[in-house]
Order: sequence, then C-alpha cells, then structure tokens
Amino acid sequence: MVTGADVAALLAELRGRAPLVQCITNSVVTGFTANALLALGAAPAMVDNLEEATVFAGVADGVLINVGTLTPALGETMVATARAAGSAGTPWVLDPVAVGGLPLRDRVAAELVPLRPTVIRGNASEVISLSGADGGGRGVDSTAGTDQALDAARSLCERTGGVVAVSGPTDHIVSADATSTVSNGDPMMTKVTGVGCALGAITAAFAACAPAPDAAFAATAVWTIAAEIAMERASGPGSFAVQLLDALYALEPADLERLRR
Amino acid sequence: MVTGADVAALLAELRGRAPLVQCITNSVVTGFTANALLALGAAPAMVDNLEEATVFAGVADGVLINVGTLTPALGETMVATARAAGSAGTPWVLDPVAVGGLPLRDRVAAELVPLRPTVIRGNASEVISLSGADGGGRGVDSTAGTDQALDAARSLCERTGGVVAVSGPTDHIVSADATSTVSNGDPMMTKVTGVGCALGAITAAFAACAPAPDAAFAATAVWTIAAEIAMERASGPGSFAVQLLDALYALEPADLERLRR
Amino acid sequence: MVTGADVAALLAELRGRAPLVQCITNSVVTGFTANALLALGAAPAMVDNLEEATVFAGVADGVLINVGTLTPALGETMVATARAAGSAGTPWVLDPVAVGGLPLRDRVAAELVPLRPTVIRGNASEVISLSGADGGGRGVDSTAGTDQALDAARSLCERTGGVVAVSGPTDHIVSADATSTVSNGDPMMTKVTGVGCALGAITAAFAACAPAPDAAFAATAVWTIAAEIAMERASGPGSFAVQLLDALYALEPADLERLRR
Repeated sequence: MVTGADVAALLAELRGRAPLVQCITNSVVTGFTANALLALGAAPAMVDNLEEATVFAGVADGVLINVGTLTPALGETMVATARAAGSAGTPWVLDPVAVGGLPLRDRVAAELVPLRPTVIRGNASEVISLSGADGGGRGVDSTAGTDQALDAARSLCERTGGVVAVSGPTDHIVSADATSTVSNGDPMMTKVTGVGCALGAITAAFAACAPAPDAAFAATAVWTIAAEIAMERASGPGSFAVQLLDALYALEPADLERLRR
Repeated sequence: MVTGADVAALLAELRGRAPLVQCITNSVVTGFTANALLALGAAPAMVDNLEEATVFAGVADGVLINVGTLTPALGETMVATARAAGSAGTPWVLDPVAVGGLPLRDRVAAELVPLRPTVIRGNASEVISLSGADGGGRGVDSTAGTDQALDAARSLCERTGGVVAVSGPTDHIVSADATSTVSNGDPMMTKVTGVGCALGAITAAFAACAPAPDAAFAATAVWTIAAEIAMERASGPGSFAVQLLDALYALEPADLERLRR
Repeated sequence: MVTGADVAALLAELRGRAPLVQCITNSVVTGFTANALLALGAAPAMVDNLEEATVFAGVADGVLINVGTLTPALGETMVATARAAGSAGTPWVLDPVAVGGLPLRDRVAAELVPLRPTVIRGNASEVISLSGADGGGRGVDSTAGTDQALDAARSLCERTGGVVAVSGPTDHIVSADATSTVSNGDPMMTKVTGVGCALGAITAAFAACAPAPDAAFAATAVWTIAAEIAMERASGPGSFAVQLLDALYALEPADLERLRR
C-alpha cells in the first residue's frame, strides 16, 4: 500500500461491504467506538458475553479485543472469542491498553498474543510491555518513544505472524518483512478518550477487507487524516470529537492526498 | 392520537411531570440514553443491579429494559425488574436489541415477553425474531422490511396485551385493534449508535403519562421530528447526535406540525 | 483559597503536573468523565477491577469512587481501593450518587465513609442521606435545598476529617473549621448526564495538587465557570456538553475573574 489513492480505493470497498465488526472493548469508549465504526461505514456490534461472543466471532467480519477495562469473566470471554475468531478465520485486532504492570490485563494479554492476533495496535509503551520488555507506561499514556518500540513490534510479529501498529506522533505499521509509516494526525487526538481505541476498531473493519499490513495502514491513514480535517473546524477537545466523526463520515478520495508517509 | 397538536399536548404534560425513567440498558448507549431523557424533560436513573433495580421499579414512573449487552446476571436483573414493574403497575418497555440467533439475549427476551411489556420497540428483524419467526437480522441492523414485521407485531400484541413499535423508515405502532404510522425521521438516525435505544427510553417516559399506543406514537413523533430538525443543522453523524439533543430539548408545538402519518 | 487568581495558579500547577486520576465510576459517565479530565489537563485511568484497582491506587495521584452504578463485586473493589488509597496516602473523592433508600449503594457508601474520603462531593439530598438523615432524594436529583445540607456536611467532616462539597445552584465547600461558597454555573449543568460526576473526578485531580478545601474549591470554580462560558456558545444540552469540554480546555486566568463567591 503506497499511495493515498490506494487507501481511498480500500475505503470505498469497505463502505460498499459495510463489514460487521464485533467489539469487546472497554467500558469507557464503547459509544465512541461504535460511532467511529458507523461514521467509517462499518456495522458495529458490541457482543461481549461469553456465550454470545464466541458464536458471534464466526458471524462477524472482524473482531476487536481491547483490554482497557477488564473483569476476570471478561478476560475469559476475550480469550474464548479470540480462539473462535481464529477457528473461523475472522481477522481480529488486539488493543493492549495500559498493559505493563497491571496484573489482570497483563495475564489476559499474555494469553491473547499466542492466539495470533491479525493486528496488534497500541502505543509504544504498550507494545514494548506486551513484548515482554519494560514499557515504562503510566496509565494509558506512553512514555516511550515510538522508535524504541520497533524492536518490540518486530518481536511480536514473529510470534503472531501478524502486524503490529505502533501509534504515536508518527505511526509505524510493522510486519515481518516491512515497516511503513504514517505521519498524519494531530496532538488533540490524545485529548479525547477513545481515539486510539477507535483506531483499533477501524483497523478491525479494514482487516475484513484487506491483508493485515494494508488494513492497518489504511485505518491509520483515514483516522489521522480525518483528525487533521477535524482540527480545522474544532475549538477544543469537545468539538474535535464531534468533528472527527463528521470528517470520517465525509472523507473523500481527495482528502487522502494529505497522506504523509 | 391523531394530530401533531395531540403530541404537543402530551409532550407538555411530560415536561411538567418529569417522569423518573429507570433504564437497564446496554453499556454502549447509557450516556446518550440518559442525555436524551434529560433533553426530553424526563429524569433518567440507570439503576441496574438486582437488589436495587427491583426496589426502584416500584419508585420509577417508567422502566426501560434493553438487552443490547447482557451478562447472565444482568439478564436475571431484567427479568426480576420486569416482574417488579408489573407488580407495581409501572409501565415498562422492552427493546429486544439484536434478538435472533444470539443465545443469551434470545433466552432473556423469551422470558420477558410473557411478563407483558407495555411496549416492545425494535426494528423489523428484531420484532420478527422475538415473535418466534426468523428475523434475518445481522447484528443490530434490520434486514427485513418494516411491513413484513406487522404480522409478527400483531402476534406479540396478542401475547402481551401491549403495543409493539416497529422502527424503520416508516415507524409502525401496532396494538391489538389498530396500527398507526409515523413517516418522519432521517437515515442519519442509523449512523449514530443508540438512537433507536434512546427511542425506547423516550417511549418509557411517555408511557408514564399516557396509554401505551399514544405513548409509543408520541415518542416516535418527537424523536423523528427532532431528527429532521437536527439534520438541518448537522454536517455528519457527530454533529447530528449533538443537534438531536438540542432539537429535542427545544422542541416546540409548531415543530410537531411536521408530523407525517 | 480566596480569589480567582488563586484558582488560576492552582490550575496552572495542575496542568503542569498532569495528575493521574483513577476513576471507579458509574457506567453512564465513564467517557464524559475521562474527557473532562483530559480537557482539564489531567490523565484519566478507569481501572476498576479488584486486582488492578488496589495496585493502581498506589500509583495514581488521585482516586475517584462514584457509586452511581454498582454491582456487589464493584462495591468490594471500591472499598478495597479506598483502603489502598488511604494506605498509600493517595487522596480520594467519594461521590455518593443517589444514596438514600437504595440498599446496595447505601451499604457500600456506609463502608466507604469510615475510610475517610479526602473529599465527599454530592448534591444536598445525597449528603444528607449519607450523614444518616433522610435526604428525600428522587433518583439522582436532589429535592433538598443546599443550605439544609450544611449540617449534614459538617457532621460528615467530623467523621472523615475531610471536606464535603455540596453541589447546587450555590456550591458549598465545607470543612471542619470553615465553609466557602461558589455561586457560578448554569442550570443547564443538570440537563447533561455526568456533569456532577465529572466534578468529582476534577476534584480528585485537584486533590493531587492542593489541600482538600482548596482542591474542592478550585474544582468547583473551574467547572462552573467553564459551564458559564459554554452556555454562551450552546444552543441546548447537546452543544452545551461539547462546549463545556472546549471551555475547560481553553480556560485562562482571566476567565477565573468570573468567580462569584
């Protein structure tokens, strides 16, 4: 995936297919995540109880598993759903929110990685922690540089056979044999809760339509470019969140020319 | 209920009484649902643990039970709360989100219907599935036409003695002896999560003030008309959700003249 | 804390430190609470499972415990987290949402008060109920006058050694030896869910930077002044919520001159 035009073509395909994306995500961001998927052109389904989630993973076109707020029962549901997605061939995205020093999510994430997520999306600290090194995270914020996370990302790719997307001022999409970057976006993305989590969901939607490296690249491109457009109309984080959904919904091929690799 | 003026009168009564609406709803839409009730002039209370919910059903003026995200424990709370509402004479609304092929919600919904919800509100697929037929749903989206759901709605009305409101491009409010329609609204309502769920809550608020057929009709009318006004000011789904709350809050009798039956 | 300039200085300090605020709060307001903390300049972390929450209370700079939506398990987590915060010397805020006549939250709140919250923030009914008197609440709304709650607040201060902030048209910040008031704000604050809950979180953020009476005063001042600015730009509750976050984010020292004590 090289150009904005490629991303535009994939976005058009996604909108035509309206992939059904199952989200097992944290309680803070469920509404914003669903709205981001709807604005993208996907169909969200927040099916997260054990009994239904494993069934649904075989029906969904993509699955997001985000460990931001866990209970032991929800952790079990995540592991079972990841297995079900794997068995059904449904692509799935792991978002290891705040992994690194918090026991329950560390354990659940450690169980999820060997189930081979199609894409792992996190910030630098989370990716480093997930790989087994000390990520130096502080809550949900990253204190490590994106570049430092590349080694950790490659290590994870070897174990999962998938892609690792490291979010930051520059986003890095790492796979076994290649790394691409997206340098779009705006710092205001860190001032609205769930912007990163929504990117995980958007990635799951694209993963229903394209190979993992292209999916992660396209998801990052459309979301960060929408953010740039939103900032041109926003006066703070409240209006930014509103405009971000509007911009994603209205995103046109010409907007993708903003892509900075 | 025949005219926009009737709806306006009922809205004025609701705003004067500020009914207390207990919501046991899904985790995606709690905030938007509460904000919709506040914008309407009602008082939301999201009391959803077993011990308190059954107490509160005797205090509340109306109850919403929405099965969008379930756990087994929450399902038990819903059934117990529906019983408590029935015993207390509190009107209650069932929203059978995504019923049809997902085991836990299908079971819980099947337990709730015999408890005779005052109003059932769902899309065509959900209403058809709830009635026992194959609804052909795909996640939370309806794949069946609204008209096809009318037979299912009438069958449910016979079992509950209540009303069934089938949401869609044209909304149908079905009771044992009559069907009315509302043809207002905008397709953007399907691009914001929780718009349908909020209608269930608004219906519960009106059910505290009027007989079930009038309540379901008025709720549908005010929400879909507010949506039309919101679309005149919105530039996408993000701003539509914001404007929808503003429009509902400011809705005036003259706005109800937009009603298309 | 006497002047708007004092509040401005404390806000500048908070923004420089970006305190990490752990929130165990109700499921309706998690997103809005996190966004309010981000707009303020703090770092939210919604860590609310038993195992992690007690660990995190020793890492966080402040903790919010809000009993708005409970399960028995979440109640246990709250008590354990309050203990952990106390042991670690982390300031914590109790928001006794809708306490008074609802059994589970009444029991949990009764366990939390002896653990000596740094600040208790509630409306008049909640504060009166929490003190053991009959608060006359109706769901989450207060039916008692703010003034009536002052005796209850003083009684609670004696038991906790902390501060009680009574929210209302005039806010009262009560400690053992003094009471201060803030008369800013707008009635629209009661038409958006989570505005009061967010004030609890903002109070926890300030409590990481200042003694409890100053923290509660500053939190109330910045939030109610931001609300006044937001109302100048809003056309209803939907846009008010958006503008409130924008206004908080952009709050400048000169804005604090609006302070009415």
